[in-house]
Amino acid sequence: MEIIVLGSGNVATHLFKAFSASEGIRIKQVFNHSAASLGFFKKHTEVTTEISEIAEADIYLMALKDDVISDVAKKFSNKSGLVVHTSGSVALDALSGCSRRGVFYPLQTFSKENDVDYSEIPFCLEATSEEDLKLLRNLAGKISGKAYEISSQQRKKLHLSAVFVCNFVNHLYAIGEQICQKGEIPFEILKPLISETANKVQQASPARVQTGPAIRNDHSTIDAHLRLLDSSGENKEIYTLLTSAIQTFHGKKL
Amino acid sequence: MEIIVLGSGNVATHLFKAFSASEGIRIKQVFNHSAASLGFFKKHTEVTTEISEIAEADIYLMALKDDVISDVAKKFSNKSGLVVHTSGSVALDALSGCSRRGVFYPLQTFSKENDVDYSEIPFCLEATSEEDLKLLRNLAGKISGKAYEISSQQRKKLHLSAVFVCNFVNHLYAIGEQICQKGEIPFEILKPLISETANKVQQASPARVQTGPAIRNDHSTIDAHLRLLDSSGENKEIYTLLTSAIQTFHGKKL
Repeated sequence: MEIIVLGSGNVATHLFKAFSASEGIRIKQVFNHSAASLGFFKKHTEVTTEISEIAEADIYLMALKDDVISDVAKKFSNKSGLVVHTSGSVALDALSGCSRRGVFYPLQTFSKENDVDYSEIPFCLEATSEEDLKLLRNLAGKISGKAYEISSQQRKKLHLSAVFVCNFVNHLYAIGEQICQKGEIPFEILKPLISETANKVQQASPARVQTGPAIRNDHSTIDAHLRLLDSSGENKEIYTLLTSAIQTFHGKKL
Repeated sequence: MEIIVLGSGNVATHLFKAFSASEGIRIKQVFNHSAASLGFFKKHTEVTTEISEIAEADIYLMALKDDVISDVAKKFSNKSGLVVHTSGSVALDALSGCSRRGVFYPLQTFSKENDVDYSEIPFCLEATSEEDLKLLRNLAGKISGKAYEISSQQRKKLHLSAVFVCNFVNHLYAIGEQICQKGEIPFEILKPLISETANKVQQASPARVQTGPAIRNDHSTIDAHLRLLDSSGENKEIYTLLTSAIQTFHGKKL
């Protein structure tokens, strides 16, 4: 399978590494409009900054910013290969100029520094023909055991969920760290709790394992916490809103 | 070391199991005001529902509800052993009637069904004498490699942080699950992301690894998400508040 990767950000880099380590996949070329960010890829394969120089391939993998996907895709209308993007929030229609189009969305949080266990990454796939879907299943199967057929509408909702369980969760970790720093407490102490909280919901439904003062309707602890948060601006608002949301969700009265 | 456990809830049960598996610790007795919940403990040691029947021991471990700790402690004023509670939010002063008092607070989320890796649980310790602190360090060391000396004031802040990184985080997981259910998407797909998000902050500061539309100031994704959330009540409010909080925290403009 010959692939051309478009883009050089976190997703492009991580997928490039995963593909490179897999048998049966050849990354023929990496494209990016700026040469500066192609340094890493240049060591391993051909690179280009010109769309006109992009070769023929089985799959064109666009790991690009959401707002340029549609424009770049227009330049692939004459290609016979499958054009896919890797975005959680862009619909398949954004590639409507391409004769064969699909989505290859890895649901994971990538950062440049962290290595990721690719075998654990779920790929959300979408295509307009059964054959192209099979091709994407095949591609996903080479790096991960987990692939799901997900429609554009479902993918939007999945991406929204991901913002709650990843981006917003990480901010709550940041607030926890901030409170610790102000109290001269090592954040270290909270790390096993963070792990176990994530661990618990691998088996059990989060709705079923909710704990804490909100669900216990423990006013005296809630009040004590709000007093501690007095001068912390938005953190107090977050505490109040999430406490109320937990109680509404679980049918308790504030 | 002879210990008497007071209480029969999650914390009491988990500590009982951990102590029972450790060398050098003998659980002499378990007390609870109601006999019904003593069934499990009765199979392993002596139990009682009468405070007057509580024997002598090195440590009285009160794994009780926050609001009864102070009252129960008053009945231990004549004991020469060390009286400790296991609460994150109750000050050491709540045991002021006892001649020797301390805190033995395991910072972990316990649920009846889940087994916990005790060696990973951080214990937050407090006592009024160096000798008693040493005794608690010794006790913690028998089941975990992690013990910290934490003052009552620090412990309150730590408990507050724990509400953010555990209880509130779990509710965000529940919202993610709810969105998936409504979209007929398997929640399964999000589980590797949940693990990796918790995993990332074991090494890196959460403030440094924040990702997502809020920190990218990606208005079109944020607006699309808010439209998707239109009819979902508090979830929309949570999305708006946390997006704004991330931007304030990281110095971005909404």
